Amino acid sequence: MATQKLLLLPGDGIGVEVMAEVRRLIAFLNKSGLASFETEEDLVGGSAYDAHGKAISEDAMKRAQEADAVMFGAVGGPKWADVPYEARPEAGLLRLRKDLGLFANLRPAVCYPALADASSLKRELVEGLDIMIVRELTGGVYFGEPKEIVTLENGQKRAVDTQVYTTHEIERIARVAFDLAKVRKGLLHSSEKHNVMKSGVLWKQVVTSVHKAEYPELKLEHILADNCGMQLVRTPKQFDVIVCDNLFGDMLSDVAAMLTGSLGMLPSASLGAADARTGKRKAMYEPVHGSAPDIAGKGLANPIATLASFGMALRYSFGLSEAADRLDAAIADVLGEGLRTKDIAAPGQNAVSTSDMGGAVIKAM
Amino acid sequence: MATQKLLLLPGDGIGVEVMAEVRRLIAFLNKSGLASFETEEDLVGGSAYDAHGKAISEDAMKRAQEADAVMFGAVGGPKWADVPYEARPEAGLLRLRKDLGLFANLRPAVCYPALADASSLKRELVEGLDIMIVRELTGGVYFGEPKEIVTLENGQKRAVDTQVYTTHEIERIARVAFDLAKVRKGLLHSSEKHNVMKSGVLWKQVVTSVHKAEYPELKLEHILADNCGMQLVRTPKQFDVIVCDNLFGDMLSDVAAMLTGSLGMLPSASLGAADARTGKRKAMYEPVHGSAPDIAGKGLANPIATLASFGMALRYSFGLSEAADRLDAAIADVLGEGLRTKDIAAPGQNAVSTSDMGGAVIKAM
Ligand SMILES: CC(C)[C@H](C(=O)O)[C@@H](O)C(=O)O
Ligand SMILES: CC(C)[C@H](C(=O)O)[C@@H](O)C(=O)O
Repeated sequence: MATQKLLLLPGDGIGVEVMAEVRRLIAFLNKSGLASFETEEDLVGGSAYDAHGKAISEDAMKRAQEADAVMFGAVGGPKWADVPYEARPEAGLLRLRKDLGLFANLRPAVCYPALADASSLKRELVEGLDIMIVRELTGGVYFGEPKEIVTLENGQKRAVDTQVYTTHEIERIARVAFDLAKVRKGLLHSSEKHNVMKSGVLWKQVVTSVHKAEYPELKLEHILADNCGMQLVRTPKQFDVIVCDNLFGDMLSDVAAMLTGSLGMLPSASLGAADARTGKRKAMYEPVHGSAPDIAGKGLANPIATLASFGMALRYSFGLSEAADRLDAAIADVLGEGLRTKDIAAPGQNAVSTSDMGGAVIKAM
Repeated sequence: MATQKLLLLPGDGIGVEVMAEVRRLIAFLNKSGLASFETEEDLVGGSAYDAHGKAISEDAMKRAQEADAVMFGAVGGPKWADVPYEARPEAGLLRLRKDLGLFANLRPAVCYPALADASSLKRELVEGLDIMIVRELTGGVYFGEPKEIVTLENGQKRAVDTQVYTTHEIERIARVAFDLAKVRKGLLHSSEKHNVMKSGVLWKQVVTSVHKAEYPELKLEHILADNCGMQLVRTPKQFDVIVCDNLFGDMLSDVAAMLTGSLGMLPSASLGAADARTGKRKAMYEPVHGSAPDIAGKGLANPIATLASFGMALRYSFGLSEAADRLDAAIADVLGEGLRTKDIAAPGQNAVSTSDMGGAVIKAM
């Protein structure tokens, strides 16, 4: 079995605690011969700033470029509220996304049957929910220039951000979304604001062309982003795959995640283009939740989102779909047995610690 | 009683039907001596395009400028899917907002007790919900330049939208929001993405300064827009007033509206700055819902959102708070009696028509 190189970037807050469980899982997989991972580890976010004065070092970036995949924890916290904008913890994450070319962010919002009651929504609306949000991740208002604050003659300030999309950027993310819809229920919703934004006009045009030319057998629906947010709350099960730009994806995936009632459960994958020669894609995997400074260091965090993100790595980066299936089944088993971390425990129910949950999942494999 | 000038712009689809009920209500108020309105009427949106080739005529704009307030219905529909971008139905709405200087959009999300079960959310999460979203309405990515699609040398297209905010624009919307928080629960959430957008950085700074200098007695919380969307679904009652930019306001107010389970119930007010000499503000009132082409012309639309918007006009533009209170009470009474249009009827319950509902509200006054 060829050795695979994995870079672990735990980051800040609970990122450190949940990544510890991934490390244990890797040790288990290596030991049992199911995989052969070689791991490196580095700093990102606030902890990188404390060490190097920037949110990710050049050395860590180089390691990320060379790894077969990156596991990312979470970054940020009140401790770094006043660091310069360019060095804020999130800058490390944004640089990784951009420099590795990870344009396709896959965010499943799945409601685990055992947790349907944890949702704010009525059970019948979320039971069996299985949505995939495909978010463009290296363009749009996150990276467009100019992006600046200037002081005007009258002393006032003027802030500018620029939303930019090209045909090519929209085409490639549309293809990722259609490819996923193809192996799922065959339905893609494309979400933008073409009634207000020129980028929305181009988005709609390009997605429509890709549909006609390459995926005519699938069903494509266009939905305005505000209406999409609304419909996600009203009748979420009408959706299969949703594709949208970076900023709408940020908003819509958080709303979708919350529907499942278990933010601590949701993984994500960020993928680059396939290399023309080797066919390999750069990739980074991270939980949808953040660094949760309020509960950091207390062993309260739910490691499942990060373990499930690692499961996506097994599947998308390493072709180890058997191990990925076993991991997913182990997570379902452990939940089925009633094990709960605090975030998903019913009121009054006893909650287990981060490492108890991680240990139980590994044991169930 | 001085005569007040009101311009009615029913627009397209169900806009026409719900505005008919406002006309009846005005006739009732005039007849009973509770008010003295003089109304004019004009086209906007697709119907204006059909008549004049643009989404609002210069003549209608002039009438809007001269009126004491504008009542707006809704615009758009599949019929106008292919009109040029500059003439699309929404352009009429955007021009009204911009040219009248209506920078403050107030969108209450209130859960009527009689309708708490219509929400997708569990009853206990929305019962008693009363949020006010204050959305900046004349700036941001809606109006910033450049806003264009250009064809590049390689034949690809490139679309650009520009998000711009100045200190002044943020200060004035922050004051509107703090003033509202002051007469409500004293809590303001300011929502942006300062971790990604420079306009978010400036937004946070300016709102913080206005808070310190002018409203130190109120509580201010900053919340990232994605997290705000999530928290609205998780525990909506944590919010009192939320202030945000044009695009986040568009998304967040739709999510908030849906929590109440009764989109057909929600009004909005769009206000300009007070005139330095007369103290008067330009203002436009409209339901949060759209033109709903699928049910247009069938008498199925719920007129309450538009009637309640007219109630906001009575309060904010005409100082007729007594009549506004009577209208609000009449709406609550009619709902309490169990009257329901289709959108808010329980499964299997008989629904009444648009004009039956409008008539019942007027009768209850
Ligand atoms: C941390 C932040 C920069 C990031 C984003 O806005 O993309 C986060 O909200 C996410 O969704 O991954
Ligand atoms: C119709 C459309 C232009 C408008 C907007 O995006 O502002 C609508 O969604 C709204 O929220 O009033």
